[in-house]
Order: sequence, then structure tokens, then C-alpha cells
Amino acid sequence: MEIIIEHINFVGSFVFAISGALVAIRKKLDPFGVLIVGFITAVGGGTIRDMLLAERDVFWLYDITIIYAVIAGITIAIILKERLNFFNKPLFFYDSVGLGLFTITGVQIGLDANLIPIVCVLLGTITGIFGGVIRDVVVNEIPVIFRKEIYATASIGGGGIYLVLIHFNVSNPYLQIIPIIFIIVSRILAVMFNISLPSIYPKENDS
Amino acid sequence: MEIIIEHINFVGSFVFAISGALVAIRKKLDPFGVLIVGFITAVGGGTIRDMLLAERDVFWLYDITIIYAVIAGITIAIILKERLNFFNKPLFFYDSVGLGLFTITGVQIGLDANLIPIVCVLLGTITGIFGGVIRDVVVNEIPVIFRKEIYATASIGGGGIYLVLIHFNVSNPYLQIIPIIFIIVSRILAVMFNISLPSIYPKENDS
Amino acid sequence: MEIIIEHINFVGSFVFAISGALVAIRKKLDPFGVLIVGFITAVGGGTIRDMLLAERDVFWLYDITIIYAVIAGITIAIILKERLNFFNKPLFFYDSVGLGLFTITGVQIGLDANLIPIVCVLLGTITGIFGGVIRDVVVNEIPVIFRKEIYATASIGGGGIYLVLIHFNVSNPYLQIIPIIFIIVSRILAVMFNISLPSIYPKENDS
Repeated sequence: MEIIIEHINFVGSFVFAISGALVAIRKKLDPFGVLIVGFITAVGGGTIRDMLLAERDVFWLYDITIIYAVIAGITIAIILKERLNFFNKPLFFYDSVGLGLFTITGVQIGLDANLIPIVCVLLGTITGIFGGVIRDVVVNEIPVIFRKEIYATASIGGGGIYLVLIHFNVSNPYLQIIPIIFIIVSRILAVMFNISLPSIYPKENDS
Repeated sequence: MEIIIEHINFVGSFVFAISGALVAIRKKLDPFGVLIVGFITAVGGGTIRDMLLAERDVFWLYDITIIYAVIAGITIAIILKERLNFFNKPLFFYDSVGLGLFTITGVQIGLDANLIPIVCVLLGTITGIFGGVIRDVVVNEIPVIFRKEIYATASIGGGGIYLVLIHFNVSNPYLQIIPIIFIIVSRILAVMFNISLPSIYPKENDS
Repeated sequence: MEIIIEHINFVGSFVFAISGALVAIRKKLDPFGVLIVGFITAVGGGTIRDMLLAERDVFWLYDITIIYAVIAGITIAIILKERLNFFNKPLFFYDSVGLGLFTITGVQIGLDANLIPIVCVLLGTITGIFGGVIRDVVVNEIPVIFRKEIYATASIGGGGIYLVLIHFNVSNPYLQIIPIIFIIVSRILAVMFNISLPSIYPKENDS
């Protein structure tokens, strides 16, 4: 299990580093700003997850491959920044993959720490979305996921499905692949059909 | 003592979740944004407090009642959002209660960890105010308490009184009730009589 | 070694508290806002460093002298705020000293925790720069160091030199003084000659 989580952390960190670096480039930050925003985006969610658990060391402190994944992602973002539009669709896909991967590691780590199920799902969602939340806060924006809620809703749903599959003793690879695919497909469908949660505001009252 | 702190955490989380959700609603965030800002506001101060102490697990990881309190607070805020003005005064009151409650838990947890008195008061203030600080940072505002200082001053004062009462062996319920009432009354009087700390800026120089 | 780190923490906290308080004063925050922004700036980097390491208590929890250093720095900033221009150059110097000092403590603490070299340098840079990053995020600005990259580049370079000197068994005081002087001189030269890293953006495309 630990080995699978390490692979997930690697791929997820790489993808989120690209996403963070691209936001920094759009904000015209200098090379170091791009580096640090990419790094924060990639490891932010997992770092908060590990800091919440008193006995857990932060995952990238002892794992050089994470650092390599982040540096690779940032380098690719800088090199390919002129062709962003060309890469928008694959990036959206990989970002969804990253969300799915990180969510499942967070839920699993919560289970390993004997947390109650709802808190495990919460920990998975924190792992999946807080890199992006910190990224947006640091570049002085209201986090985009607070206004595009299918992102987080997909993460919560995927985390819940993972728990249900464990309950019915489903084993790997299905155990992990099914919720990850659920998260990816939810996001793709939500964007394709422009689906969002029902609004809590009256229609005329938009400011 | 632990049981009292748990009750305090429950009521304080409920009240601060309402406050966070209302700020998110004013910013027209979507349902998930309201949920996460409410959650951050409710547990943010206590979470930072627990992360600062190496051996302490974050309080809501093992306490499902906190999650219920937060969800209840957010639900009430969403349902009652049309009547915000009607609820402004009771909310101000409950927010002051939350500040008082959280401050005292922070000071007490500092004492349990054998911290020096000034750091205990600091830990109490962090517990009381940082939920609101993170709330404002996340919705892209300069924290309101940096410009309405009686809020934090009341927290520091209440924390100091708590330490003095312990020094003189005052026991519960007076030990906890007196500083909490001090914090609540300070805030009410400050707002009623428009009291603030002396300004450190020259009068004409306001920008 | 521990004693040297304590001295460094004291001087660095004092200097960074001044820097944080001055930013808060420029933003016209009230006295409590100045206090908390000064405190966050002074201890923010070291606090994140200590929270990342599971077994480490946050450095200022058990060290009253840090609190004194922060309060002294904030008091001086408030008293001298009218003469800021007069103090700009010495402040720039002390801020560079603080960056150098904090970077070296971070690298050393990483070594003590048996982290791999690149992560030690990262930990040093986090310790040196994150106080300023949090300061700017809290007062609602994009962190200035994301746009003036010699700041962080100097920190990374100094951390790397420190590791090289340890590799060649250089002992104190040279071990610590050489990288700190490197960091200070780098920043002074960068500002004097207006040096920055090569831009990653096309020249005409500046917004």
C-alpha cells in the first residue's frame, strides 16, 4: 500500500506542479515565484494532511522523488508556456487525475490512522483540493474551487465510494481505480454539460 | 477539564461556522465554498493551536461532534441568509461567546503543556482569532480584526484574567465564567460606546 | 550548536518583527494588527519549518526571549515609523542579515533530522522566506519575493554553500559566517547593480 501511495504522490505532485506554475506564469511572477508557487500547489494538500496528524512526518521531507517530480513539472510548464491553449485539455485531464489520486491517498492515510469515516473523506478532500486553495490565496485570488464546486464535490464523492468499496471488501486494483475514474469522469461530464450544484442565491440577486 | 473543553469546542465551532458561512455567502461563493469557508473559520484557530504543539493531534480528527456542529452551523447560515440583518445582534453576541470560549481552551491547553504564562495567553488568542484571520485571507480581505482591535484585545485581556484567577486558586465554574464574561462584556461595551485603542497614526494622515 | 541557533533566532526574530510591523503600518492597520503581522513575519518561517518536522516543538513555544525580541522590534517600528526613509538602508541590511541567519538555522535543523541535502536547503529557504510570504498574504499582497527573486536565490545559494563547507569539514565560526556573508553580499550587489534572474517572459509581452 505504501508503495502505491508513493507512486500516486509522484504523479500527482508532477501534475499539480504544472498547474501551479502555469497560474504563476499567468500572474507574471519571476522564475523563483513560479518555482515556489508550483511547489506549494504540488505539495500543499499533502503537507496540510500530514501536519494535521501529529505522528506523521510531511511526505516530501524524506522522499527525493517528490522534489524531482515538482522540478520536472515546473520546468515543463516554463518551457511550454507559449502553447498553453494547446495543452489546456490534457492539463484539465491530468489535473483531474491528480485530484483523484490525492483524494484516495488522503482517505487511505486517514483509515491507517483509525479516523472515523467522515473525517477520512474530509482528509481526502483536504489532500486533493488544498494545494489549489493555497495556490490561489498566495497569488491573491479567491480560490477558484470555491466557485466551481464540482471539483470538490467530485473529490468528496470519490472518497465516499472508496470507503463503500472497502466496506464490501473490493480489492486492488479496482478498489483504487473505481473512485479515481469516478472523480475524473465527474469532472469531465460537469464541464461538458456545464453542470453545477443548485445555486443557494436568488437569481435576480447576482452582483 | 477535558469534558468541559469538548463542550466549549462544540459550541464555539457551531457559532464560528455560522460566522464563516455568512462571510462566504456575502462573497457569493457556491455551496461548497460556503461549506469550506465555514469549516475553516470554525476549526482554524484550534487547528493551528494543535499543530503548534508537536504531541497534540488536531482536535476535530477524533471528535465527530465537531463535524456535526460545523455542518449544523453552515446549514443554519444558508437557510437564514435572507434574514441576516435580523440576526446581526444575536450573531455578534454568539461570536463574542465563541471568542471567549476558544480563548480559554487555548490558554488551558498551553498550561497543560507547561508553557510559560505569556505564551499561554498567546496560544489562547491564536485559538480565538485565527479562524477569523484565515477566513478573511481566504476570501481575499485584510483580516477585519486587524482594524477592529478590541476583538483581540478582549481575548488577550480574558486570557490574562484566567491566569490571574488560577494563580489565586479560584475554581470552576467561576474560573472559566469570569474571563468569558469579561471578553463578552468588553466587546459589547466597545461596540456600544465605539471604543478603540488609541491610534498610532497622526490624525490628518488618514488615507 | 543549539546555543548558536538560539542567538540567531533572537536576532532574526527582532529584525523580521520590525519588517513586518513596518508593512502593517504602511497598510494603516491598528495597533493590534501591527502586533500580529509583526509576530507572524518574525516567527512564520521557523514555525512552518518546525510544524513540518513531526517531532519538533515550535521554537517560540518554550523560548520567552523570542517573544521579547518580537515585542522589542514592533515597539521600535511603531516609535520610529515617522523616520522610515532614514532607516530604509539599515533595515535592508538587517533584513538581509535575518535572511542569512534564518536560512542557516533551517539547513542545520534539516541536517540534524537526517534529511537529504536538497531538502535541507529547501528547509533553510522556507525558514528564511516564509515569514515574508505569510506577511504579504495576510495584508492581501502578492508576496514581494515572488517578484524580486534575488532574495530567495541568495537564500538557496547560501544554503548550498553551507552544505559544501560542511562536506569539506570547515568548522565554526567560518562555517556559519561565510554563507551568511554570501547571502548579505548577494542581496546588496543585486540591489546596487539592479541584477535579477533572466526573465522567462518575452520582452514586449509585459503587462
